[in-house]
Amino acid sequence: MPTPSPGYAITLRIDAPASPTVTSELARCVAAAGGSVTALDIVESRPDALVVDLTCDTSGEDHATTVAAALETLPGVAVRKVSDRTFLLHLGGKLAVEPKVRLRNRDDLSRAYTPGVARVCRAIAAHPEDARRLTIKRNTVAVVTDGTAVLGLGDIGPAAALPVMEGKAALFKQFADVDAWPVCLDTTDTEQIIAIVNALAPVYGGVNLEDIAAPRCFEIEARLRAELDIPVFHDDQHGTAIVVLAALVNALRLVGKTIDRARIVVSGVGAAGHAIVQLLRAQGATRIVACARSGAVHRGGSYTDAHRRWIADHTNPDGFDGTLVQALAGADVFIGVSGPDLLTGADVATMADGAIVLALANPDPEIAPAEAAEHAAVVATGRSDFPNQINNVLAFPGLFRGLLDAAARDITTPMLVAAAEAIADCVGPDELNASYIVPSVFDARVAPAVAAAVARVAGEGRPVPTGGEPDATPHRVEQPVPVGV
Amino acid sequence: MPTPSPGYAITLRIDAPASPTVTSELARCVAAAGGSVTALDIVESRPDALVVDLTCDTSGEDHATTVAAALETLPGVAVRKVSDRTFLLHLGGKLAVEPKVRLRNRDDLSRAYTPGVARVCRAIAAHPEDARRLTIKRNTVAVVTDGTAVLGLGDIGPAAALPVMEGKAALFKQFADVDAWPVCLDTTDTEQIIAIVNALAPVYGGVNLEDIAAPRCFEIEARLRAELDIPVFHDDQHGTAIVVLAALVNALRLVGKTIDRARIVVSGVGAAGHAIVQLLRAQGATRIVACARSGAVHRGGSYTDAHRRWIADHTNPDGFDGTLVQALAGADVFIGVSGPDLLTGADVATMADGAIVLALANPDPEIAPAEAAEHAAVVATGRSDFPNQINNVLAFPGLFRGLLDAAARDITTPMLVAAAEAIADCVGPDELNASYIVPSVFDARVAPAVAAAVARVAGEGRPVPTGGEPDATPHRVEQPVPVGV
Repeated sequence: MPTPSPGYAITLRIDAPASPTVTSELARCVAAAGGSVTALDIVESRPDALVVDLTCDTSGEDHATTVAAALETLPGVAVRKVSDRTFLLHLGGKLAVEPKVRLRNRDDLSRAYTPGVARVCRAIAAHPEDARRLTIKRNTVAVVTDGTAVLGLGDIGPAAALPVMEGKAALFKQFADVDAWPVCLDTTDTEQIIAIVNALAPVYGGVNLEDIAAPRCFEIEARLRAELDIPVFHDDQHGTAIVVLAALVNALRLVGKTIDRARIVVSGVGAAGHAIVQLLRAQGATRIVACARSGAVHRGGSYTDAHRRWIADHTNPDGFDGTLVQALAGADVFIGVSGPDLLTGADVATMADGAIVLALANPDPEIAPAEAAEHAAVVATGRSDFPNQINNVLAFPGLFRGLLDAAARDITTPMLVAAAEAIADCVGPDELNASYIVPSVFDARVAPAVAAAVARVAGEGRPVPTGGEPDATPHRVEQPVPVGV
Repeated sequence: MPTPSPGYAITLRIDAPASPTVTSELARCVAAAGGSVTALDIVESRPDALVVDLTCDTSGEDHATTVAAALETLPGVAVRKVSDRTFLLHLGGKLAVEPKVRLRNRDDLSRAYTPGVARVCRAIAAHPEDARRLTIKRNTVAVVTDGTAVLGLGDIGPAAALPVMEGKAALFKQFADVDAWPVCLDTTDTEQIIAIVNALAPVYGGVNLEDIAAPRCFEIEARLRAELDIPVFHDDQHGTAIVVLAALVNALRLVGKTIDRARIVVSGVGAAGHAIVQLLRAQGATRIVACARSGAVHRGGSYTDAHRRWIADHTNPDGFDGTLVQALAGADVFIGVSGPDLLTGADVATMADGAIVLALANPDPEIAPAEAAEHAAVVATGRSDFPNQINNVLAFPGLFRGLLDAAARDITTPMLVAAAEAIADCVGPDELNASYIVPSVFDARVAPAVAAAVARVAGEGRPVPTGGEPDATPHRVEQPVPVGV
């Protein structure tokens, strides 16, 4: 039976006879049925009866039903209601739009709204760059999806993608105080998506593209980067690449190898694989072999897809044209962003000593981590229930914080590298070991470190940016000092 | 000199010599220069010198400069900095996106984000109507503009329109707990705007169109209403019409007339004028004459614009074809949504006894209210510095609250009428007088009354809506009871 998970936690409201042992009997019954009790509250107590709320993790929706049925076999026990704590958390959505100003009276209204707001509008019309000072643009990022490649669920559409985008926005706020807003587009037309994001841009200081299927995502990102004066970032590509590079930097430190000499096999040449290859190359990796389902991508292959052609021309200098498993023999690093169960422990055993396996396919990795660990020095996955979770949450909040702080107009490769190094450096030399190559997603130091690193790169080679400075652009009446508010 | 207004409030940071009389000298000096002191704080005190923050209303930016200059003529006084309190309020924007769930640990993350969120996504993919229960759609409204008709400022573009849309969103939240989000579109193409709002719709439970120029606004509203399954509302049209009807209902009560017999002259046949004529007709008004710049719109005129043609065919049964001023003779009601200074007191004097003048042109009404009041029984304007402010804030928050609560898919004329009557009824019989025909915008009873009235109409003739009911759509595991969260 699979392990119970808080993703499938339920709360059961139970009528039970009053007896000194009833709560322990309930808990024992749930445990016997495979559930993991996390809370037990008596919500009503009468001489002859109790009402109990019992919360437990289960391993899935069928299992939740099983647990409830098991309880009902106890004498005198009835399950009044089963509520699903995951659904409960999402009820009504996970975001609120809150005013930062109070409108208590007519004076407030006349400053925040008409007539006072007209002056602020005129100031922006006259000096468009003031929008970053005087509106939410300064701190606001659009999380844009068309719902075509959501988690491992595929093309579920924009409405069903919204809970993920809300969650992403919540992470942006929690980890980096970025105001992010979900933009779930009911179109899959590339030109239409590009036109829409262009049209929406006045409100935003950055665009996070999310869960858009390849190859459309490449065209959308490239065109928007060219057309917009705010940074555009496809998290599934570059967010993943940043965290992979961070993990690799620390894993290589651990096994005493260097990136320029390491032989690296990348499984998966979609959006993430392409971005990973690009970023590793920028960091000096030369011995990369990227594998598609059809085997190694090589110079001699005929690829109609421009992105695969690019990989063929920029990796695999030896022209290796075998399978993924063949490519693995003697390799130092495996990076999987492909599909489940592509490798066995025996395959990993053919790798070089001190092998590094980053098996990131979600929800099921290219190889079970326990099996990989029998033969590799370092193993990481995308899963939260194994050590070394490679999670984009480590990258995107701090990255956008840095971009917004610097009023950056574009994202450059040096910024991605700086973000990766900042994440890697959050694991101190004393902390670094095979089970801890990346910091916890709840490590509060990560986002500020990433933000500072990115803002530093963004600020290099040009004057200190003024867009982020409240006092930088005086109006006729000098604007503004923080007094008497 | 114009009256000082909080819309032009400034705070001056002043170095002054320490003396027992210096603060009163500063205050006197500001008053003599025409400023209105609202606060005076000593922020630093040394034996020989003080630093003082003096806040005062001024009548404009030039006046603020004059006030500062006047202070500097005092012996030993130097103005260190002048900050504009209106701009200060808008600094960094007026909205924040706040998570409603805390992500404190991995359990939270696994429910709110991956892997738990995948179950919520799948539930919505399987049952699209669940989006209203499980996402922000349930409580979220898009405030959509192209920035072409912003306040009295005209076509200032989407970036400069953003402060207004943020203010509008703040009002939505404050008055009706609606989460509203600004959508400022960098396009003025009608088809493009329609396509974009269609594509954005999955996230929203309603669309508030705002400050879009006529005649484009008619086409955009009509098409979106036809194409979307969420309510679409152009506030400049129907919000204004609701509040005008509310004011008229009470004004007619006051002068003892009825809407079906009143002769009503409407000046302005743009977006607002058209909607007002429609709504007054729906309430039984038959004797309406609508005037454009060229004079009364009448059946015999040749109009290429379909909306003006509609007015010609549905008003002015007598075929009157004179000027606005001529139309006014003997009229019971004047409603102006046109331009400044079109009428004189002498014109109003030609109206019937118990004349009602709603002169709503902004910022300067069709006639100065004091002048109108010499000859009319009831006068109202759009301005906040006169009694009877006709302000859309009375309508839109409660209207959308009601629409969202009822999970309404469209807005109907009976809902607009219900909203108007609810606003009118917030002024009790004992309160009703010529200076109080509409409630204050800060009257907390208004939005709930409007919401209830609108939801009641929305619910008529069909089953009680389930979209707004958290418990209405059970999943396999029953969803959800508010326990143990």
